[in-house]
Amino acid sequence: MRQAGRYMAEYRALRAKHSLLELCRTPELSLEVTMQPLRALEVDAAILFADILLPLEPMGAPFSFEKGEGPVIHQPVRTRAQVDALRVVDPHEGLGYVLDAVRLIRRELDGKTPLIGFAGAPFTLASYLIEGGRSQHYALTKKMMYGEPETWHVLMQVLSETTARYLVAQVEAGAQALQLFDSWIGQLSPHDYAHYVLPHVQKILRAAEATGVPVIHFGTGTATLLGLQKQAGGTVMGVDWRCSFAHAQAQVGDQIALQGNLDPILLLGPRALLLSRAQAVLDDARGLPGHIFNLGHGILPETPVENVQALAAFVHSASERA
Amino acid sequence: MRQAGRYMAEYRALRAKHSLLELCRTPELSLEVTMQPLRALEVDAAILFADILLPLEPMGAPFSFEKGEGPVIHQPVRTRAQVDALRVVDPHEGLGYVLDAVRLIRRELDGKTPLIGFAGAPFTLASYLIEGGRSQHYALTKKMMYGEPETWHVLMQVLSETTARYLVAQVEAGAQALQLFDSWIGQLSPHDYAHYVLPHVQKILRAAEATGVPVIHFGTGTATLLGLQKQAGGTVMGVDWRCSFAHAQAQVGDQIALQGNLDPILLLGPRALLLSRAQAVLDDARGLPGHIFNLGHGILPETPVENVQALAAFVHSASERA
Repeated sequence: MRQAGRYMAEYRALRAKHSLLELCRTPELSLEVTMQPLRALEVDAAILFADILLPLEPMGAPFSFEKGEGPVIHQPVRTRAQVDALRVVDPHEGLGYVLDAVRLIRRELDGKTPLIGFAGAPFTLASYLIEGGRSQHYALTKKMMYGEPETWHVLMQVLSETTARYLVAQVEAGAQALQLFDSWIGQLSPHDYAHYVLPHVQKILRAAEATGVPVIHFGTGTATLLGLQKQAGGTVMGVDWRCSFAHAQAQVGDQIALQGNLDPILLLGPRALLLSRAQAVLDDARGLPGHIFNLGHGILPETPVENVQALAAFVHSASERA
Repeated sequence: MRQAGRYMAEYRALRAKHSLLELCRTPELSLEVTMQPLRALEVDAAILFADILLPLEPMGAPFSFEKGEGPVIHQPVRTRAQVDALRVVDPHEGLGYVLDAVRLIRRELDGKTPLIGFAGAPFTLASYLIEGGRSQHYALTKKMMYGEPETWHVLMQVLSETTARYLVAQVEAGAQALQLFDSWIGQLSPHDYAHYVLPHVQKILRAAEATGVPVIHFGTGTATLLGLQKQAGGTVMGVDWRCSFAHAQAQVGDQIALQGNLDPILLLGPRALLLSRAQAVLDDARGLPGHIFNLGHGILPETPVENVQALAAFVHSASERA
């Protein structure tokens, strides 16, 4: 998940002067926003400040962020002709500003903190493209998947090819780990995931893993998909608060590291409860071959920054004790 | 799930003249809408036409349905004082029109088709009350749960007591099976479900089961909650398309019947795919101690009614062959 965000006053101050897309597209600003959480929180890694939708514009599907509504794709992609018009992006051309930001951030971090790059996974990106924004039922997305499987697979291919190149380019620019975000994949049945998504994600993750850096495979609501997601690839599997590590291990085996899985809404609750539930996550993680403490999903804007600071400090000191 | 709805022309015709709440609150209209799907589809049971939110108004929290937005609670319930002001409803007073509808429908069905009554479960009702409508993150709901557990449990108690009485009264009026809808429960971690919800749902389900009719316990996104939901009770567990029956049985054991689990969006796809996936559900259900074929969630308004008819006929004839 993005570490920076509207819960931080420093971020809100920058956003008062620049749109989200300006922050993403200006390497110096992306550097600044990437560094904000490192100054405020005891975190073990920096996460590139960017947005999973950035590749859509150079692909040929411009979008903007509308106040309170999230992303709006200007021309939702719903026909074969529209899909055929999308381009595979050469990241050095269409997303050069992200690669510049990666290089700037690496220089600034100076070897002290590792940098995680990331990209959105093709189902999640396709859902934005097709629905035109966020969705409740993903009806148009599934309708294309079920009704026009050829169009669907062409769309998934252009998204996957773009995403694979983008991730590899981030590593070449200096990213020391990668995360693939399939945020909305939990909408699918295991059958549909296997049939319509897995082969595409697998291609991306193979390319990402071939760079040699650790690759985190993230989703939400994935309790019944984890076994298939493991087949698709990744060196670390993300799980959310709905799924205990024991439940996850029953599906992915005991050889793979897990990331997660605190409910981010606990950050809106009392401090003592927050820390006791963080401790429960750490206890649950004992015996895993590897564990990255994380939230199950993103931090809400109304989250008190002091709670995020207290959580990071608590996990940090608990991990040092262990 | 409601069988009637905007996907049916007969329903849309009635809705052109009456609001959703008028249909619910007028027993003759509720009877008519309950009968519509029975005339159009080969279904094995009638489902009372009502809305899970109906008890909120006599509890002291009026609401309306705003076009395109779903339910809007006029005064969202967020403080202890507001929770204390809510009343346990005597269904014979506050919800007499639903019980009248049940009696009318039973008379009309004349023993030929069984009638299923239903109610919303307390977490799902609480989420509407607190958020003021539908929600993306359930942040205010969880904030009360985490931050004001006493207020939360008082709210759950008044909702549970109302719901238990309401379900029992439906059976007394003639309902021959019951369904408890915990539609949004899949937002919770197993820990939170056990701690903040299970005892309340258990009380309701004990009261419902004591009437002697079968009780269906429904939720969505419940792949990691099913074991706890079974502890809470019910004679049949609902599962959605995210969860295979095998996965469900691993949690609830092999002694309990399951309901589900076709993705309703398949009704927007090609007929052949729809029926082959319905067949896959029936195949997956072989060996269960009992199975009620159903969708994993509600039918969307844009669904072609012919597809619903074809699905019901297919399942009906497949079940007769089996």
